[in-house]
Order: sequence, then structure tokens, then C-alpha cells
Amino acid sequence: MTTTTPAIAVSAPGAPLATTTIERRDLRADDVLIDIAFAGICHSDLHQAKEDWGSAIFPMVPGHEIAGVVAAVGADVTKYQVGDRVGVGCMVDSCGECEYCLAGTEQFCLKGNVQTYNGVGFDGENTYGGYSRQVVVRDAFVCRIPEGIELDVAAPLLCAGITTYSPLRHWGAGPGKKVAVVGLGGLGHMAVKLAVAMGADVTVLSQSLKKQEDGLKLGAKDYFATGDEATFDVLKGRFDVILNTVSAKLPIDAYLGMLRVGGAMVNVGAPPESLAYNAFSLLGGNKVLAGSMIGGIAETQEMLEFCAEHGLGAEIETISADQVNAAYERVENSDVRYRFVIDASTIGA
Amino acid sequence: MTTTTPAIAVSAPGAPLATTTIERRDLRADDVLIDIAFAGICHSDLHQAKEDWGSAIFPMVPGHEIAGVVAAVGADVTKYQVGDRVGVGCMVDSCGECEYCLAGTEQFCLKGNVQTYNGVGFDGENTYGGYSRQVVVRDAFVCRIPEGIELDVAAPLLCAGITTYSPLRHWGAGPGKKVAVVGLGGLGHMAVKLAVAMGADVTVLSQSLKKQEDGLKLGAKDYFATGDEATFDVLKGRFDVILNTVSAKLPIDAYLGMLRVGGAMVNVGAPPESLAYNAFSLLGGNKVLAGSMIGGIAETQEMLEFCAEHGLGAEIETISADQVNAAYERVENSDVRYRFVIDASTIGA
Repeated sequence: MTTTTPAIAVSAPGAPLATTTIERRDLRADDVLIDIAFAGICHSDLHQAKEDWGSAIFPMVPGHEIAGVVAAVGADVTKYQVGDRVGVGCMVDSCGECEYCLAGTEQFCLKGNVQTYNGVGFDGENTYGGYSRQVVVRDAFVCRIPEGIELDVAAPLLCAGITTYSPLRHWGAGPGKKVAVVGLGGLGHMAVKLAVAMGADVTVLSQSLKKQEDGLKLGAKDYFATGDEATFDVLKGRFDVILNTVSAKLPIDAYLGMLRVGGAMVNVGAPPESLAYNAFSLLGGNKVLAGSMIGGIAETQEMLEFCAEHGLGAEIETISADQVNAAYERVENSDVRYRFVIDASTIGA
Repeated sequence: MTTTTPAIAVSAPGAPLATTTIERRDLRADDVLIDIAFAGICHSDLHQAKEDWGSAIFPMVPGHEIAGVVAAVGADVTKYQVGDRVGVGCMVDSCGECEYCLAGTEQFCLKGNVQTYNGVGFDGENTYGGYSRQVVVRDAFVCRIPEGIELDVAAPLLCAGITTYSPLRHWGAGPGKKVAVVGLGGLGHMAVKLAVAMGADVTVLSQSLKKQEDGLKLGAKDYFATGDEATFDVLKGRFDVILNTVSAKLPIDAYLGMLRVGGAMVNVGAPPESLAYNAFSLLGGNKVLAGSMIGGIAETQEMLEFCAEHGLGAEIETISADQVNAAYERVENSDVRYRFVIDASTIGA
């Protein structure tokens, strides 16, 4: 038994988004039915919709930045009640038994986590994401959105927020630490807000100075253009942490040169091509090149509490369903400050 | 005023080693005069002697793995007395005032540490290393060699020991952790001994299985040939730490594939060429690629205490001064198990 709900889908790789109707499974004992209020548009949605990252499943309903309200719960659900404000991020299930699940890092589940869309559940059914009016998700993969964060600005936290929060925490962003954020986009603008709230001294490294005013308004103390080679000299040995949110093929050695001794450059953005580095760039200061992929469910909840405590949400532009294709084009052109969220009530309305 | 002492020097890049006489400065108030007993031959000595690493100073007296006995101390030296067993490693001075010196990481001194040889002291004088009968070193850069480690097997600890100890400690080698050591040479064999003594489960990754018996004797539980491609499949996701002691151009993505989630590949060996990696190899498991360069003086002392406590020293082959050129050739051909140490009493005898 299933229920149907309006959704925005891509019928084939690169096809335009179009309103359709999809099925959501009937509630299992541990399921939560969510009335979606807002769904963020993540840049990765565009890649998936064009099948940039290997074989994908079509039709595809993108969306893994979901905020909404609980509409119904399964028989065994005690954590949530109808009316609760909740969010869903990049994953909707994992084995729950492997060492990585038990450690709260479900994104690294040894059986593979189930992606919110373009995934296949352990029941063999394809998953469909948040560009939709309703979604059914296992309770363990639903986070609570604290009072004090509006649902629209909360939606992007479920991916952009956790993706930047997790490495900032892990690599020690905080008082007395100098943090650089590379790229001021959907991820980057959240990284700036989060690192500032953690108490770090934040610098934005962007290709140009175009968004400098924004960056400083978000709390950054400094803003440098990486298009200007002098930047790398001026900032030599400056940062404890460089969080790279862009997918460009960066000159890694030059970036490592901006780290202090023991500093870490952490990549959450990644280009498809290989990158080159010289091992001496790491040795010559006990430096670190690291990667970070979203975060576990408990940490996502922690991030949401942190955002509520500090009054943080994403900078958004809210659109209706009929503007989604135009929004994709604008994301492609980096013409968004800083996240589109779809008002889900307009889907199929 | 100076005193003279016999030494083994290289007169020009790539020239053979030859016995000569050098001057050592008269003791300053904070100096220690050391009668050198043994000096290890580090592979980096060969690079320096051939001027592989950029402009070097000739004549050159290599040697930064020095063990000996205090012969005299300056007026203000309280830490050491005549007769004390002591060691000197890669550095003989640093500014002592910058943040990195104050943090006990003198190797990253902002004014540049003074290398034990092929360096220039803050007094403007060239430094000459341990292939010599005597050396004068500032007390702060002299370590105590604990009773229970013979001076001959202690000498290589001052470089090979600390170079591997420091990253093993920093990246958490210990009980319950799986550590791979890449390369079983001067550094690698110490890394195996140290990681085993720290309680880790140690695997050697060597090009072939030639030294397998040795590796297991040193305490490794497993030994795999990286020349066999199947190794990378068998060991996928296995290690918490991979300590790379070789300077070969390794296939970094394949090595990163052998790390567990959150694992670190730490390089103490480094090839001159750039290395290639794909950022997804780091992202796909919150992995780390890091470098490590020797260690500070306090940590070097800590390492020596650790070695004494666990009965560890280097595996050595002791040679006399007239065998040094032959030994260099054998090091070049990886034909040493695992470190040559020069009996300093034979220099100029």
C-alpha cells in the first residue's frame, strides 16, 4: 500500500524538472510521514540530475535538504509526534549494526547508507527526495528542528550545514583559531557563519572580491581574492584550518603554504580530476590534507541545536515550483546568494 | 679560540668521504662538548653529500644521529655533567622565542632551526655533523641517553627514532589500532619496533617479501608485498594509520583505499616529484594525508625514555671510518639491515 504525493522530477539525465506524482510507502512501525515545507537546492542535485557522477536512477526527485512538519508516525515511533518540526538530510537509512553506524557515522555504513534520493532502500525500492509535498523516512534518520530556526532557513542546514559543521568541529575551529573558508557559495556561507559562531577568526578566500561585502557581513574578518597571486604570500603560514568548499582544481601546494605548522586543509568540495601536491608541502610543517563527508545523524542534530543557540540559518531565496528550472540555471552560473529553497506547498498546487 | 678534531668530510658535491680535521668552537657558557662514540648514517646524509636538495655547504661533515659521552660543559650548564651519556639529532639550535620553539617544536622555528650539519649557526659559522670525534652543542639541543640503551643502537634513534615516533604518537598508534609501515629500511624498521611497543597491530608493506622474516621478527603481525596488486584489495579499509617511510612516488589513492574511515596516511618519506590524488579518496571516509618532520627536543627525550623502557634500539651494522664509502654505496643499494653506525673512535685513528 502506498500514498501518492506531488513532486518535481527529472525524467532522464539532463532533462528539465517537471511536476509529477510519486508514491510514498505506507508507514512502517518506525516511519515518520513528513509534510515537507521547504527543500533546499544543493549543487549536487544538479550533478545527480545530469548523471555527472555515474549511473543514476530516473525518474529522479532530487532534494536532500528537507524541512517540514510531522504529519503521522508509525506504531513504534516515540521520538516524534504529529506537529513536530523536523528535517531530513542526505541519508534515510543505514544498517545500524556496523562499527561505523554504531559510532554515529552512518554516512560510512559498511553496507552503504541509503541516499535520500537516487538511492535504493534495503527494501529494494528507489528513493525519491525532497522536491515533493510529503516524504516517509525512518525515525532514526529524522532530526528535530529546534524552535528558533524557521523551517525555510533550516532546510539547507541538513546538507550545507552539517557538511561544514562536522569538519570545523573535528579540526578544532574555535576561539584563538584562524579559519579560512574557500569559496562563498551554499556551503561556504554556512561555513563562515558556523566558524564565526564557534569563535574562530574567519577569512574568506574567494576567486574575486565580488562578494566581499557579504562575507564581512556574515562575520568574516578578512576577505582575499585567490585570483591575486599576492594573496598566497600575504597569508603564508596563517591558518589553523582551511575549509575548501569548492570543486575547482586548486593548486594544493599554494594552499598548504597558507597553513600554520600542524594546520589542516579539509576538503568538502572535490573536483573529478586528480590533484597534485608535493609531499614536502605536508612534511615542512606537519600539515594535513583531509576530506570530510557530511556528518552522522547525532552530529546533524547537534549542529541544529548549535544553529538554534546561535541564531543561525542559511541565507536563502525562496522559490515556487515553477521557478525550479530557472533556479538550476542560476545555480549553474553561481548566481544565488546563497541557497534556493523550494516552497513545497507550491508543488503540484 | 677553537679546538680541532678528526672528522670524515665530503669536499665537494658527490666527492668521496675522506678523513680530515675540523675545528670545534670553544665552549660557551651553555655548551656541551661531546666525545662522540657512534654516528649513524642516515639516507639523507647521502642526498646532502651529493647536493641533491639544493645548494649545500662544502666541505661537509655529515651525521645527525650522534651518541656519545659528555667530555666538558660550559660554565652555566647544569643539566649535564662530564661522563653523561648523551645524543644529538638533526638540530643544534633554534631561536627559542617563537611560538613554535615555545611549543616544543623547534624543528619549525620561525627563524629556521640550525641543522646539525650543512647549516649555519646564529653566529654565522657553518655547522659540521657527527662523522667526527667530538662535537660542541648547546645544552638545550642535547638529549640524555638513558641507561639501558647502548650508545651504538641509540645513535640512529636521534633521527630514525624520533622521525617515526612522533607521527605514530600524534596519529594514535596504540592498543586496538592497526598500523601499516611502508618500507622496511632505517626508518621503517624503527617504526615497526616503536608501533609494536606502543601496542598497535603492525603490518609491513614492502615492495617484495624479501625482508618478511625480519619484519615478523621485529614484531609485525603481517607482511604484504605492494608489488602485488592484490595487496590493495585484500587490505582495503584496514588501517588506522599508514606511516610511509619511503621516498618513492606511491599511488596515493590506492594507499588511501587501505585506510579505515577517519584513518591517516602520514608521510615521513617524500619524493621530489609531485604526487597525484583524488579528493574523493579523502572525502569518501574522512581520511587524512599528512606529513611529519622529525620531532622537538622534549619529544626526542620522551622517545629515548620510551625506547629504554621497552628495550628498543636500532638494528645496526657497526663500521669503521675506512668503510664509510663502501657503506654509502650499500645504503644507495638498500643493502643494509638496518642502519650503519660509524665507530667514531676509528676516525683519524
